[in-house]
Amino acid sequence: MLSKPTPRLSVVGAGIGDPDLLTLKGLKVLQSAQVVLYDALSNSSLLEHAPAQALRIFVGKRRGFKAYSQDEIHQLIVDMARQHGHVVRLKGGDPFVFGRGYEEMEYARSYDIPADYVPGISSAIAVAGLAGIPVTYRNLSRSFWVITATTADGSLAPDLYPAARSEATVVVLMGLAKLPEIADIFRQAGKSELPVAVLQNGSLPQARCVFGTVDNIVERLEKEALGSPAVVVLGEVVGLKTWDVQAALAEITPQTTPLTHF
Amino acid sequence: MLSKPTPRLSVVGAGIGDPDLLTLKGLKVLQSAQVVLYDALSNSSLLEHAPAQALRIFVGKRRGFKAYSQDEIHQLIVDMARQHGHVVRLKGGDPFVFGRGYEEMEYARSYDIPADYVPGISSAIAVAGLAGIPVTYRNLSRSFWVITATTADGSLAPDLYPAARSEATVVVLMGLAKLPEIADIFRQAGKSELPVAVLQNGSLPQARCVFGTVDNIVERLEKEALGSPAVVVLGEVVGLKTWDVQAALAEITPQTTPLTHF
Repeated sequence: MLSKPTPRLSVVGAGIGDPDLLTLKGLKVLQSAQVVLYDALSNSSLLEHAPAQALRIFVGKRRGFKAYSQDEIHQLIVDMARQHGHVVRLKGGDPFVFGRGYEEMEYARSYDIPADYVPGISSAIAVAGLAGIPVTYRNLSRSFWVITATTADGSLAPDLYPAARSEATVVVLMGLAKLPEIADIFRQAGKSELPVAVLQNGSLPQARCVFGTVDNIVERLEKEALGSPAVVVLGEVVGLKTWDVQAALAEITPQTTPLTHF
Repeated sequence: MLSKPTPRLSVVGAGIGDPDLLTLKGLKVLQSAQVVLYDALSNSSLLEHAPAQALRIFVGKRRGFKAYSQDEIHQLIVDMARQHGHVVRLKGGDPFVFGRGYEEMEYARSYDIPADYVPGISSAIAVAGLAGIPVTYRNLSRSFWVITATTADGSLAPDLYPAARSEATVVVLMGLAKLPEIADIFRQAGKSELPVAVLQNGSLPQARCVFGTVDNIVERLEKEALGSPAVVVLGEVVGLKTWDVQAALAEITPQTTPLTHF
């Protein structure tokens, strides 16, 4: 008879697309998984790190439809941990940046299931960086403010107004659909000429970037067929970009690189 | 005779102390290094990933003294790349968050040396997370603002004033020495009761955390012997902390874990 499994949850940041942006800790945790619950933002090639017999369950959103509600994910974590042992919840970016990772850990702990957090490379910093934009830069940007475009009820995030008046580099996640409204807020704050970048698929070879200003970014974007998720960066640091982004991105690890030799 | 080396610079984020928080990409880049230039914030055990014959040069600050000026580091990068080939500049956290990583890449490129950026786990997000504090949390914090306490000339960062009035989670890096002034700014913004955490050595077993409010954090800190670098987090999310941080930290990878089997 099999021994009783030891329930455990690890909420693991999968990074921003390039599978090599997983941490060594994330790799080790995946290698000991009995169950992997993954969402659409995590690169599916990461699932290859899990043991062959591990269960792999997609719990994300595809074409606007949710495979599982958040309540169902919570219940699945508890059920799977009790039945199988170590559950790895693989989430795009960092689990605590606009994810529900903390709530999932709280839920598991309320059932006495130990839960730990493995940080991930966040699109809040690294998508801009890979496009040649540092979120901070000496004498140009001393801070950065990371915001989602909308609140839980779908309305525009109120933090966007003070952010537009601040000197911070402003990084808007999940902001593409609200870009006209965001540009208006910055225009009203007197920032019409502020450089703006819209960045899609940050770390993958098919990454796309559109650069402009608060005044012309919406128009420039209409000519491009960028889709979500995209990161919007507003700030003087966007104007720094001194090198060829496409050439730099061409050097990125292809999505298909096997990592089994680790 | 040896073939001429191919000069190249990789600016690599070393993460926040736990050597397993390096990315797979960072590991691969280190494994191909001819020269590693590292600073005090990067975990020295990461140097073991570099080939045995690679040069290892400490270019950071120790006990207040700089081993090299920034200009000297720039020149060292160019000289080493030309003489030896692939230079890896290993920096604590993420190279573009209050580091000089971007400037070093610009300098190398101005000498026609290709330069690339490998993101790292940043203390801006992950130190709080490992202490049980998510920088964002549904219906509690919709944004986070990352700030250094001082400007280049040592004066208090002006962004702290609007940050204190905002609804954002405020993460202050390198802020321990200015904590009394920071608390004053938040008190004047009517935030006396706002929860505050001061976090040291985020991901290491010897991590220390002090929790309080804007009103009492300075007094509480006087009873503890916390040193720099420390991360200060101000926001309602600090009050969320529902689990035993010391127990969670005890599960962290010890600093001495050998990683050579990767």
